Amino acid sequence: MAAEFDLINQYFRFSSTEQTSTLLDVETGVGDDAAVLNIGDSRFVVATDTLVEGVHFPVAMEPRYVASRAFGVNLSDFAAMGVRPKWLTLSLCVPAYNETWLAEFSYELEQLCSQYSLALVGGDTVRGNLCIGFTVMGTSDNGCLLRSGAQAEDDVWVSGYLGNAAAALALLQNTAHTDWPLTPSERRVLLDAFYKPKPRIELGLSLQKIATSAIDISDGLLADAGHVAKRSSVGLAVNSSDIPVAQSLMRYPEKKRISDWVMRGGDDYELLFTAPKHQRKNINQLSKQLGINLSRIGYVFSGEGILLDGAVASEQQLAGYTHF
Amino acid sequence: MAAEFDLINQYFRFSSTEQTSTLLDVETGVGDDAAVLNIGDSRFVVATDTLVEGVHFPVAMEPRYVASRAFGVNLSDFAAMGVRPKWLTLSLCVPAYNETWLAEFSYELEQLCSQYSLALVGGDTVRGNLCIGFTVMGTSDNGCLLRSGAQAEDDVWVSGYLGNAAAALALLQNTAHTDWPLTPSERRVLLDAFYKPKPRIELGLSLQKIATSAIDISDGLLADAGHVAKRSSVGLAVNSSDIPVAQSLMRYPEKKRISDWVMRGGDDYELLFTAPKHQRKNINQLSKQLGINLSRIGYVFSGEGILLDGAVASEQQLAGYTHF
Repeated sequence: MAAEFDLINQYFRFSSTEQTSTLLDVETGVGDDAAVLNIGDSRFVVATDTLVEGVHFPVAMEPRYVASRAFGVNLSDFAAMGVRPKWLTLSLCVPAYNETWLAEFSYELEQLCSQYSLALVGGDTVRGNLCIGFTVMGTSDNGCLLRSGAQAEDDVWVSGYLGNAAAALALLQNTAHTDWPLTPSERRVLLDAFYKPKPRIELGLSLQKIATSAIDISDGLLADAGHVAKRSSVGLAVNSSDIPVAQSLMRYPEKKRISDWVMRGGDDYELLFTAPKHQRKNINQLSKQLGINLSRIGYVFSGEGILLDGAVASEQQLAGYTHF
Repeated sequence: MAAEFDLINQYFRFSSTEQTSTLLDVETGVGDDAAVLNIGDSRFVVATDTLVEGVHFPVAMEPRYVASRAFGVNLSDFAAMGVRPKWLTLSLCVPAYNETWLAEFSYELEQLCSQYSLALVGGDTVRGNLCIGFTVMGTSDNGCLLRSGAQAEDDVWVSGYLGNAAAALALLQNTAHTDWPLTPSERRVLLDAFYKPKPRIELGLSLQKIATSAIDISDGLLADAGHVAKRSSVGLAVNSSDIPVAQSLMRYPEKKRISDWVMRGGDDYELLFTAPKHQRKNINQLSKQLGINLSRIGYVFSGEGILLDGAVASEQQLAGYTHF
């Protein structure tokens, strides 16, 4: 998203003082993927995300994809925290009472709740421009993966293939090159990356005892690597040739655009995580076990900022890509 | 709100089956003021509400009032449940990055969080038409007041004075009669009822051991009485002459409009509750103790629906009042 909207969050950090946090049982507040609250002996985890038509997804997108995209984006925060989501509330803002739209949206949401064993426990529906806000909640007795745990010498890993969702959006917006050879199934895979981002819940849970930090890639690979670097007070180095990119994307006629999609595209909701070198074998085993591609794309160093192929990443590279 | 938006909620009750509820530790889900989740020995309570510019408040309302109104409306659900709110997340959708607006909104929110001992623990800011979604959370070890506990023979009570917020909206929308004699301070009191609805948290907490059911008046006195009647499988009888109305409102030149504001206006976020007759003395003591007017306006009977001055309330009376 536009960088100015990150600035906005600066206005809402007033409860982040140590005093308030201790007093009110807040373990992790504004700034990580989710907030962690202490309730008795349990940790309660809560994350909220709102998607706006025309900002986070194209106007007139099919309702079932509005549901699946909003669901995936929201659960992804829990994947990054290594916590199993259990409940959600929905704030649905719709311009009109359209039964077909509502039936398709709610049917898809019901399927997804069932698939991920989530209960929709509340919410409200109001009239206005289409926007979908979920608040996802769960508990964790095993702690949480944070952005702040990366250590110098750790490896940097990502799941899946990057850039697919950004490329899909170019297809949806008719801004993709017409000379791009894509089979129908390749096209489908790309579109699904945008329509139905898969929250990497099982991966996140498995990484609890393996990774030192994690984040979901929403702003863009380099931007999100930057978030981990900043919160962990370290630097992250990324080798572009190690970044996993789908074959179909590699055939796109303009190399510069591929690079933008992969490095700055965001929207893939894959996990970026750091782990000690001695975990490589475990991570490769985990990849096989879950059937998810896991790629080692760099390393953590003492210092700050992001190195891309040995060069300091520019502000522009770190800024992410504005789709709308 | 428009009745069709209540229908929408019918699409989102798929997690309300007994099986899902037991499996996923949901004690009270979609349909009450808030959801109640079981976490270890604790009850976790969560409620969400979204306010949209031009639907729930007038266009270009001052940012500090946007904050105070959204805050009051959201905390009111907790007042009605008799639970102390502790944490909140914010989903803020703003059309542009306006520093003055954001500074004033966040300053007001910070003041209110401090006043009510709440921590803002997360949220996101997105671009779009102005809308404010809060998710409020808290824990309760003493159970919760629900809409469903009203018993035949109980008294029906309301807090504060009704109709003020609806009258304020008429002032704001310039639809109020020009011959309405109002002192500046009376005008201020009315406007504050809309701008800064006071969530009746302390009252709700005190009613835990006194009341059999409670709801906050958001849709309108008769509409919300209808919700209690339905959920409790009883009828509620209301005497119009016992409803507390401010002197300033009584001087409005059109009696029909006063009645609409008071009976159907909603937006006051006062509490309507039911309690056994033997609690009258306790309730009157509580009124003095908290400095909140508490009025006995009717009784609960075996049956169904709402009686107003002995006559069955019409669909129109029960529908609430659409302001926009």
